[in-house]
Amino acid sequence: MSSTSMRTHLCGDLRPDQIGDTVSVCGWVGRRREHGEHLAFVDLRDHSGIVQCVINDDIDVRSEYVLRITGVVRERPEGTINDNLPTGQIEIGDCEVEILRTATPPPFPIDARADDVDENIRLQYRYLDLRRERMQKNLRIRSAVNAAVRNSMADQGFVEVETPMLVPSTPEGAREFLVPSRKEPGSFYALPQSPQLFKQLLMVGGVDRYYQIARCLRDEDLRADRQYEFMQLDMEMSFVDQDDVLEAVSASVLDAAEAVTGERPDPIERITWRDAMNRFGIDKPDLRFGMELRELTDAFASTEFKAFAGAEAIKGIKVDGGADEYGRNQLDKLTDKAKGAGAKGLVWMKAVAGDDGGVRFDSPVAKFLSDDEVAGLAAAMDAAVGDLVLIVADDWEPTCEVLGMLRNEIGRPPVHQGPYRYVWVVEFPLFVGRDKETGNPKSGHHPFTMPHPDDVDKFESDPMSVRSIAYDLVLNGWELGSGSIRIHEPELQRRVFAGLGISDEEAERKFGFFLNPFEYGAPPHGGFAFGLDRLVAILAGEDNIREVIAYPKTQSGQDPMTNSPTAGDPKAVEELGLRIIPRVD
Amino acid sequence: MSSTSMRTHLCGDLRPDQIGDTVSVCGWVGRRREHGEHLAFVDLRDHSGIVQCVINDDIDVRSEYVLRITGVVRERPEGTINDNLPTGQIEIGDCEVEILRTATPPPFPIDARADDVDENIRLQYRYLDLRRERMQKNLRIRSAVNAAVRNSMADQGFVEVETPMLVPSTPEGAREFLVPSRKEPGSFYALPQSPQLFKQLLMVGGVDRYYQIARCLRDEDLRADRQYEFMQLDMEMSFVDQDDVLEAVSASVLDAAEAVTGERPDPIERITWRDAMNRFGIDKPDLRFGMELRELTDAFASTEFKAFAGAEAIKGIKVDGGADEYGRNQLDKLTDKAKGAGAKGLVWMKAVAGDDGGVRFDSPVAKFLSDDEVAGLAAAMDAAVGDLVLIVADDWEPTCEVLGMLRNEIGRPPVHQGPYRYVWVVEFPLFVGRDKETGNPKSGHHPFTMPHPDDVDKFESDPMSVRSIAYDLVLNGWELGSGSIRIHEPELQRRVFAGLGISDEEAERKFGFFLNPFEYGAPPHGGFAFGLDRLVAILAGEDNIREVIAYPKTQSGQDPMTNSPTAGDPKAVEELGLRIIPRVD
Repeated sequence: MSSTSMRTHLCGDLRPDQIGDTVSVCGWVGRRREHGEHLAFVDLRDHSGIVQCVINDDIDVRSEYVLRITGVVRERPEGTINDNLPTGQIEIGDCEVEILRTATPPPFPIDARADDVDENIRLQYRYLDLRRERMQKNLRIRSAVNAAVRNSMADQGFVEVETPMLVPSTPEGAREFLVPSRKEPGSFYALPQSPQLFKQLLMVGGVDRYYQIARCLRDEDLRADRQYEFMQLDMEMSFVDQDDVLEAVSASVLDAAEAVTGERPDPIERITWRDAMNRFGIDKPDLRFGMELRELTDAFASTEFKAFAGAEAIKGIKVDGGADEYGRNQLDKLTDKAKGAGAKGLVWMKAVAGDDGGVRFDSPVAKFLSDDEVAGLAAAMDAAVGDLVLIVADDWEPTCEVLGMLRNEIGRPPVHQGPYRYVWVVEFPLFVGRDKETGNPKSGHHPFTMPHPDDVDKFESDPMSVRSIAYDLVLNGWELGSGSIRIHEPELQRRVFAGLGISDEEAERKFGFFLNPFEYGAPPHGGFAFGLDRLVAILAGEDNIREVIAYPKTQSGQDPMTNSPTAGDPKAVEELGLRIIPRVD
Repeated sequence: MSSTSMRTHLCGDLRPDQIGDTVSVCGWVGRRREHGEHLAFVDLRDHSGIVQCVINDDIDVRSEYVLRITGVVRERPEGTINDNLPTGQIEIGDCEVEILRTATPPPFPIDARADDVDENIRLQYRYLDLRRERMQKNLRIRSAVNAAVRNSMADQGFVEVETPMLVPSTPEGAREFLVPSRKEPGSFYALPQSPQLFKQLLMVGGVDRYYQIARCLRDEDLRADRQYEFMQLDMEMSFVDQDDVLEAVSASVLDAAEAVTGERPDPIERITWRDAMNRFGIDKPDLRFGMELRELTDAFASTEFKAFAGAEAIKGIKVDGGADEYGRNQLDKLTDKAKGAGAKGLVWMKAVAGDDGGVRFDSPVAKFLSDDEVAGLAAAMDAAVGDLVLIVADDWEPTCEVLGMLRNEIGRPPVHQGPYRYVWVVEFPLFVGRDKETGNPKSGHHPFTMPHPDDVDKFESDPMSVRSIAYDLVLNGWELGSGSIRIHEPELQRRVFAGLGISDEEAERKFGFFLNPFEYGAPPHGGFAFGLDRLVAILAGEDNIREVIAYPKTQSGQDPMTNSPTAGDPKAVEELGLRIIPRVD
């Protein structure tokens, strides 16, 4: 499969089976060592690995020269066998060496040592960085994930449809990249933030099951898990409910994971948004570790301790054996973090041995608590001597969120560290927060999300309690993607718009090009999109998505390899009906 | 596979096997007919086809309403069986009808009659146009072609790598779309015309075998076979010669054709560029029909007919039995076309019966030809009574080109009409034409194309005769794509640049970001790219690539469905460091 007119084998594929065979391999010189009087060892490297070649010492081959070597595979002499190398039992002798290309010495070593090289240098010389085993592996994992996802979707009857890159500019959502039109100077296309509009119209168009690994672009500030450009598995299906969508997406994600790890993860469990908040204090819970939030509101129902009295919610987390580990300094830091996250304060309590053999607590606030409250706390937290308990009392949502933040802060392993714990978070609230000026509720997902059928009655009376049929897929605390069942009935859509304070006129102006097609017969439908960069990063054991992208931009949005973006050519820009505003520096 | 919580079957999948089963189907109302006193027939349609449902006449369902129908499959009554319909033997009775969505009457019928609707209207309501069988079929063919191509490449060890959409602007090639940078106002990215730079650097990076179904964009005027955006299978491989590349690409193209047609085409034949010109007068020969160019230079070697005397090349084509078919008017039109294509003139001759039982020619120029010349012509053209012969005498290339144009004009069937005749055209000239100002030769493909090794000696002495290792893939006269083996040695590259009149300084300035990486050890490599839009169009039986694109732009570059492009928002544009030049209309 990998043989060509120039080679018979890949370097890393040679084994004792080939002993005695004349082979040709091509690749780069990894290492050269002198060997006796007239010979040299050369490690020849291609993407499959390295093989040791014994060549005439007179041949001037240096680091990263490109060679074609033809020779005979032979057993390595006793004592030189390298069990750490797949090709470590053999070497190529009687070598005929053809120098295909000489090479300037590379600016960093083409091996794991380059991990410590400044990332800008690695990106400037990305074509050298990519030669390394780590990057070769990452690119191949990415390719395998894409293939597994596509095959899974195709097997489930989804049709791949390519949606446009030059799309209408829309006022909603994140900031978009604009593309000036030359044909209509002063007019612009936008680059797609997602194919949302087009995929929903595919459903109106009867495509029934659509998917695409779609390039999406957002002109947002970059960070470790965000680039201007990202790839997502985008899908939508008709005549379905939430279960249908979750099953289809789960199959493709599990297929991808299995393709990379060789092991099929367990079926993906589900948790409601409310349970996720109650138990993990966050809508993207990391299930790899415990330290769940525990309910203390009842235990302090009649407390006289002012910080607790009357709080809507009192909850705690327990750090097993943390009493000694956390000194005053660290506890102050945790308190600062809690306050930074909006908490009024953080109560800490260290479980110590009581006189009666039970547990009591060392804490600045211990004196305010009754014996019953101490006993109730110890029981609710299942606290043993040596444990540290952290308590927050506030409204329900900030109580959850602050403890969820502390839980991740204290207990969370690096994202790529196993095991892989996928979880569906379902029943997100339809509305999240209220507009400061108008007081109207704001959409949790987007305004076309279907409300939960059991909650439609509360729509006008208690909008903030209305759940939606929106769902997120979470892996090890990273949100992989989100989706929803969409509203396909105009009557319900109007009620949601009314709830959001959007008038009929405004709806028509902002969303008309999207909603008018629905008048011609929209099927019930729903969909999902998940980020492949994040999934691949986690499966590849990387914390940073740039490590799984062949040519990423730096965090300042540049490509040091090609020096883009570049200053515009005023003449070319003028053809677009534009003028560059002179900069005053 | 297609059942969901709402349906048990697709409409078009029901067969007599299901008779007696209670089924649920979902879809759109295609047609409704009254049936007796209290019943109506409804044809329910989804992407798989239609099924006849017998419903209560009281239920108000109209054209394009979205329904869920649950009922019992039963045999159609004798005399109502429709053999033209896959579901024509059955119908669904005892129907429970759920109206999922009403519908405004569509602006055109959702069937083949819409083929005749103005294309702008079809594109404005693309979400309705897509409901039609033709478009559903086209989208599914496209999806199948993509899948077959990807699987073929993966099976051959190619790694899918996604290259960036935001790339450096380059002065070469077609006009590119620019994307203003917000982070660096006044600077621009470009959208990629192809991943050429990035894929060659993947080879420098040791990826060995790369492929991608890549979105490419060109800001060029649109026409039937060109859109701003197009998809291409882009590939590159290392340590190869031309045969390796042609084999890899052939496999993927033949796999794609087989996936659609169910038949594997014959292995793809090869023809040199020179032979293609000599025999078909064009570098993208359509092999579906004969009418090949025939060599007449020798037959008229010593002619006294002025229009032929001294011409570098004299060639002819023969229209079998065309003598009667082509009257004076049509021959004048062909002559005008020939002149429009640069010919000095066109000689036509009609073969008629000679006195001796042989062939002589009726023609305004017959009187200038000797008997020997007439006999030689008849023999060379293998002309029989009633044939029409068209002759051009000029330099070799225009002679070929004019006759090639006429051959296509007269004999070529619509591009999608079978059989499929793939052909590799190889050995393109390295240089094509000369720069009018400097007199320097111009690149035929691009300046990194490898010259033919047999011709390297003629590089300085006779550059225009130097062949290259560049190749095109042609299907039924449409160029599907092109590629080449690339130069990887700087010495040879310098000679090519010298031949093109590009100085070292200019080379560094224009191509440095591309050539400097090669100094670090570039492997021998080559690649190819072919347009999927064209391939899919031909396989789908369409003459226009817009028919195989879900959301194409019109020929004026607009999307009538979303009304893009749209006028720029001056404030958003200013953030990009740009100002819209006011238009003076």
